[in-house]
Amino acid sequence: MRATVMYKAGDVRIEQRPDATIEHPDDAVIRVTRACICGSDLWPYNDLPTTPGGRTMGHEAIGLVEAVGAHVRRIKAGDLVIMPFAYSDGSCLFCEEGLPTSCVHGGFFAGAQAEALRIPYADGTLYPIQVGPDDALMPSLLTLSDVMGTGHHAALCAKVGPGKVVAVIGDGAVGLCGVIAAKRLGAEQIIILGRHADRIALARDFGATDVVSERGEDAIERVKALTKGFGAHSVLECVGAEPAMATAFGIVRPGGAIGRVGVPHYESVTGGMKSFFDNITIAGGPAPVRIYIDELLPDVMEGRIEPGRVFDRTVALDGVPEGYRAMNEREALKVLVRP
Amino acid sequence: MRATVMYKAGDVRIEQRPDATIEHPDDAVIRVTRACICGSDLWPYNDLPTTPGGRTMGHEAIGLVEAVGAHVRRIKAGDLVIMPFAYSDGSCLFCEEGLPTSCVHGGFFAGAQAEALRIPYADGTLYPIQVGPDDALMPSLLTLSDVMGTGHHAALCAKVGPGKVVAVIGDGAVGLCGVIAAKRLGAEQIIILGRHADRIALARDFGATDVVSERGEDAIERVKALTKGFGAHSVLECVGAEPAMATAFGIVRPGGAIGRVGVPHYESVTGGMKSFFDNITIAGGPAPVRIYIDELLPDVMEGRIEPGRVFDRTVALDGVPEGYRAMNEREALKVLVRP
Repeated sequence: MRATVMYKAGDVRIEQRPDATIEHPDDAVIRVTRACICGSDLWPYNDLPTTPGGRTMGHEAIGLVEAVGAHVRRIKAGDLVIMPFAYSDGSCLFCEEGLPTSCVHGGFFAGAQAEALRIPYADGTLYPIQVGPDDALMPSLLTLSDVMGTGHHAALCAKVGPGKVVAVIGDGAVGLCGVIAAKRLGAEQIIILGRHADRIALARDFGATDVVSERGEDAIERVKALTKGFGAHSVLECVGAEPAMATAFGIVRPGGAIGRVGVPHYESVTGGMKSFFDNITIAGGPAPVRIYIDELLPDVMEGRIEPGRVFDRTVALDGVPEGYRAMNEREALKVLVRP
Repeated sequence: MRATVMYKAGDVRIEQRPDATIEHPDDAVIRVTRACICGSDLWPYNDLPTTPGGRTMGHEAIGLVEAVGAHVRRIKAGDLVIMPFAYSDGSCLFCEEGLPTSCVHGGFFAGAQAEALRIPYADGTLYPIQVGPDDALMPSLLTLSDVMGTGHHAALCAKVGPGKVVAVIGDGAVGLCGVIAAKRLGAEQIIILGRHADRIALARDFGATDVVSERGEDAIERVKALTKGFGAHSVLECVGAEPAMATAFGIVRPGGAIGRVGVPHYESVTGGMKSFFDNITIAGGPAPVRIYIDELLPDVMEGRIEPGRVFDRTVALDGVPEGYRAMNEREALKVLVRP
C-alpha cells in the first residue's frame, strides 16, 4: 500500500509500505477514504532530524472497515468510521472517566495519510457513521477526528458558556473550530487573534465578533480595549508556542480560564504569581475527541456547524508533499487528502 | 490602640498606634474580638528585610462594629461580623462574578492582630453573624475569615466531589481545612501529606483516610501505591513552595486537577508538557472566602464541621510575638488571639 513518510524536515515522500493487516485480535484495518494534514504535522515538517526509515504521517481519517480481528464485536467490515487521532480500549479507568487520550492501552495514531491503516482496539476507538463514503458532509465529519473536537475541548477547558467574553489565539484550523465551539456554547463576544485575511473572514463567518491582528503587548492592549479593560473570561490557546501562552496570560481576566490545546513547545507555564493572584484556571491537553463525537455529530449532520469549511484544498495521495509545502507557507489553511 | 507590628524577620512587637477611625464614608471600624496568626504570616517572619516604620500584621478577624461611615447601609454599629481577609466593594464586575478577591476597589487586610481595625467598603466586606461575641463556636467561625474558606477553595479548584480520590499537600491549618472540605464534598479517599504527628491525628479526625509522611519522589511513589498506581483526581496544594507543586504534578492522575492556595514562592509552573499530555487542570489563588461563608456557616453553626480545632493555643495581644515564635518552630499549629 502507499503511505506518507517523512524523512526529515521538509522531506515528505509517498512510498510503498507493507499492507496494513490485523496483528492483534482487537484490531481492525480501515481503507482510508479521507485523511488530512494537521497543523501539528508542520512541527516535524520544520524540525524533524534525519530519520532513517522515516516516520509515517497522519492522525485524522475517515475510512471503510476492511477487516476486523477475532475479538472485535461492535465494529464490522463495511462500516464507515471516524478515526479519532488517539486509539483507546474504551474500557479502562480513564476511558470510563471520559479521557480516552490517557487510556492505559492507548496511543496516538500515525500513518493515516495512506491507503489503509491498522486500528488497535477497534471497538473502543472507531466511531461508525451512517452516511455514504462520498457524502457532501465528509469534510465536516472528518474534522470530528481532530480539529473540531480539539476546538471544542479548548472551549470547554476555558469554561466557555452563555454570555462569556472569549478570545481565541490562533487562526489555524483548530482556532477556527474554537470559534465555532465558542459560538455553539453561547459566547457573547468572540475575539479572534490572527492575521491572515482569508482565515479571519472565515472566523467572522463562524461567529467571531472582533479581530485582533496585532501581536505581543499590542495584542494584549487591543483585547483589553475590546473588553472594557477587563480581558476575556475564556482564552482558547490554539497555537502551543510560548508567546501565545504569554498572550493568553495577558488577556485573561481575573477568575478566567485558559484552555490550551496547542501542543506545547515550552516546558514551564510562566506567570505563576499573577495567575495565582488572579485565580486563573489553566486546563487543556490532547482532546478526548472520541467522546465529543456524540455531542458534535448531530450539529454536523443537521448543518448547524460547518467545520469542514476549514479545508481549502483537496489532494490525492501524490499531492500530499505539495500539501505540506502549501500549508507550511500558509498558502493553504488545511489540506484534505483523498487517498 | 495597640497593634502588632513586624520590623524585620523575627522581630514582632506590640505597639501603640493611632486609633482606627472612619476615613471614608464607606468605612466601618471594628473592635477586634478574635484574630489569629496565619501560616502566610510566617513568610515575612522568616524573610522580611528591615522595614522602617514596621508592617502591621494580621488579616483574619471577628469583631464588633464600633462605627460606620455615612454611606454604610447594611452594616450597623453593634453587629458582630466576620472579616474576610480581603476587602471588596460588593458591587463591581468581579464581586458580581463571585471573585471579591479581584474587586476593582479591593485589597488584602493588614493590621487585624490589633485592638481595632478600619474596614474599607464595610457593606461589601463584612459578614454579620447572629451569635454572642464569646460563643463557643468562635474559633470555628474565625476560620471562615480565611483558612476554612481557603481549604474549601482548594477543594473546589481541585474539583473534589463524590467518589473522588483526593490528596492534600501540607498539614498546616489550610491543609487540615482542605481535609474537612474534601470530606464535606464527598471525597472517597483523602490522603494527607504531612509529617507532624499531632496534625496528622487531627487530619484523621477530620476525615483523612491515609497519611503519607515521605517527601519528594518517595511521597509520589507512596501516593501512587495508595491509588492503584493512578494518582489522585484532586490535589490540594496548601503550601506554596516549588517542591510542593512538583509533588502535586507527580501525584495528580491524568484528567485530574490541582487546586493551589498556598501563596506561591515560585514564578513558573513547571511540568508544561506532562501536565498538557495528561490534561491536568491547574487552578486556585486567594480564596473568595466572603462568598463561601453562605455555604459554610450553617455547617459550622450546626456542628457538622469543626475547623476551629486547628487552633491549639490562645494568646492575648501581648502574647502575639511568642505566638509567632511558637508557630514558626512548629510548637503551635495555629494561634488564636484575643486582643
